[in-house]
Amino acid sequence: MGTVVPLDGKQTDHAQPDVRAAFDVLSDLVGQDLTRVNKVVLRRLESRVALIPQLAGHIIASGGKRLRPMLTLATARMCGYEGDRHINLAATVEFIHTATLLHDDVVDESDLRRGKATANSVWGNDASVLVGDFLFSRAFQLMVDDGDLRVLEILSGASAVIAEGEVLQLMTTNDTETTEDAYLRVISAKTAALFAAACQIGAVVCERPRAEEEALLSFGRNLGIAFQLVDDALDYSARQMTLGKTVGDDFREGKMSLPVILAFARGSESERAFWRRTIQEGDQQERDLDKAISLMEKHGALDDTVERARHYGAIARDALGLFSDGEIKAALSDIIDFCIERAY
Amino acid sequence: MGTVVPLDGKQTDHAQPDVRAAFDVLSDLVGQDLTRVNKVVLRRLESRVALIPQLAGHIIASGGKRLRPMLTLATARMCGYEGDRHINLAATVEFIHTATLLHDDVVDESDLRRGKATANSVWGNDASVLVGDFLFSRAFQLMVDDGDLRVLEILSGASAVIAEGEVLQLMTTNDTETTEDAYLRVISAKTAALFAAACQIGAVVCERPRAEEEALLSFGRNLGIAFQLVDDALDYSARQMTLGKTVGDDFREGKMSLPVILAFARGSESERAFWRRTIQEGDQQERDLDKAISLMEKHGALDDTVERARHYGAIARDALGLFSDGEIKAALSDIIDFCIERAY
Repeated sequence: MGTVVPLDGKQTDHAQPDVRAAFDVLSDLVGQDLTRVNKVVLRRLESRVALIPQLAGHIIASGGKRLRPMLTLATARMCGYEGDRHINLAATVEFIHTATLLHDDVVDESDLRRGKATANSVWGNDASVLVGDFLFSRAFQLMVDDGDLRVLEILSGASAVIAEGEVLQLMTTNDTETTEDAYLRVISAKTAALFAAACQIGAVVCERPRAEEEALLSFGRNLGIAFQLVDDALDYSARQMTLGKTVGDDFREGKMSLPVILAFARGSESERAFWRRTIQEGDQQERDLDKAISLMEKHGALDDTVERARHYGAIARDALGLFSDGEIKAALSDIIDFCIERAY
Repeated sequence: MGTVVPLDGKQTDHAQPDVRAAFDVLSDLVGQDLTRVNKVVLRRLESRVALIPQLAGHIIASGGKRLRPMLTLATARMCGYEGDRHINLAATVEFIHTATLLHDDVVDESDLRRGKATANSVWGNDASVLVGDFLFSRAFQLMVDDGDLRVLEILSGASAVIAEGEVLQLMTTNDTETTEDAYLRVISAKTAALFAAACQIGAVVCERPRAEEEALLSFGRNLGIAFQLVDDALDYSARQMTLGKTVGDDFREGKMSLPVILAFARGSESERAFWRRTIQEGDQQERDLDKAISLMEKHGALDDTVERARHYGAIARDALGLFSDGEIKAALSDIIDFCIERAY
């Protein structure tokens, strides 16, 4: 532990890393397994109730990166796993993630996800709530099929933590007094818990020593925190806006993400009045998002959010120190950079 | 199998059965266990996120009969079970049921349940969706704690079937062409699957032969169908209305329950136009519920819905034939009458 993992001679300059390539490298390494995961997902979506595969298929096919199931596949392989269990378990992870997304979109009243119409905007909130429940149940059936009580404990525990995190987030929404600590508790639960579980079960399926399990749990947890921090910065990114990507969702929903927390803490009294009006009271006008972004830039809130992400990324990288060098370990290390540097 | 279980000399005249007493007898027989179940439920509601026990406690304390967990307790005892596992499993059943209720109330946009404000009307739909997810996850954690893969299979399977049933119900809502068969598929999934699982695991925990497991599954399934049929009749009961109970929820929500299906099928063209306007188009006026009830009475739709319930009740009773006579078996048999005759 504690050693910085060499990046196999790859360009590590943070200003211009070839981070997209890092994602493709990992995709290629687990490509065959991922194809099998996608087949399991499609097969397990089947139901005599036609709306279920229709609605769930819409969100599953809507361009997600499959990052979480890829983590299960990659960590299992890095641990030397030769069996098949990681396929179903990666599908389980994707089912839990998708169920969460469906319910998130209902709670957030979102119309768009990754630039496409959300399931709730097409089929209504009711159908999204109920199909989300179906996906949760299918996830549990898939893990019961696996039959390993340790895995069941890890994944059912993660599900409960995710749900707690979602409720906690709901309670901090519109509350400008939310601290960075409270925010960290929210993202540790709602995002990092599934990343952590996805990685931990990679070690569990090949019965590696508890230290390796803990190391992968730590890798996933810190990667997940970094991922969410960057996601929250991207939602206020002027560059994303010029690329035609959706920004400002968190702002419109009054979410107390770190960029807002930092800009509020560092702002003048009149700036805080702006945040109270827009986030707390939800009174938003035409150019308020632009103003929010410029206040964040003025106070370095976005750069510092990404800087915080680098801190967790560094912990994640060190957590890999326990494992022997190899192409999968290198790819997992590079995926940390991918998660962070996609901010630029 | 096939024998009608004697009712221990009790009054079986359907017009005036002491059905409330039947419920109390079962309550008393499993009373000590039920107190333990309630303690597990309260303990497992705990969360550092205060809203969770608050909201979930509201619905759990809101006067539900605890019929489903009582079935697990009673069937386990009838099978001669002496251990403790049935306590946690009965709590699991109650958690699944409560999660379903929370999501149901969101989907139905209900303001009242059993005459009390629903959680969604007090804390909002968002909180109800997310706390419902938490309860589902807790249910899975509880069954993982039990650790028996057969039980996990039965309960995770039931959860998936329930979710499918809820989606199916959503698709038949407002559709006056819904058949009695489609309705039966809906209630078999959304209601009877949990009754069936709750009873089946009573046999599983004490490792009874598969035939007894199947018999209890059949008992629970048919009791669940009867229960839901009567629930659906009660929602149009003029007597319930005079007792000050809420009626007409299903009507307002445009649900295609059996009383509507029968009244529609037996109605004249002008009556069908009434159902199309009120149920299909959702165009309802002041006295439409009264008219709906009088059309149902005219065509015997409510009595015949209860008559259908008696059919499933009779199957449930015969399913108990396999078990030796005793006070718990007698109480379970009487509970069938309780579920049906509460219509009067």
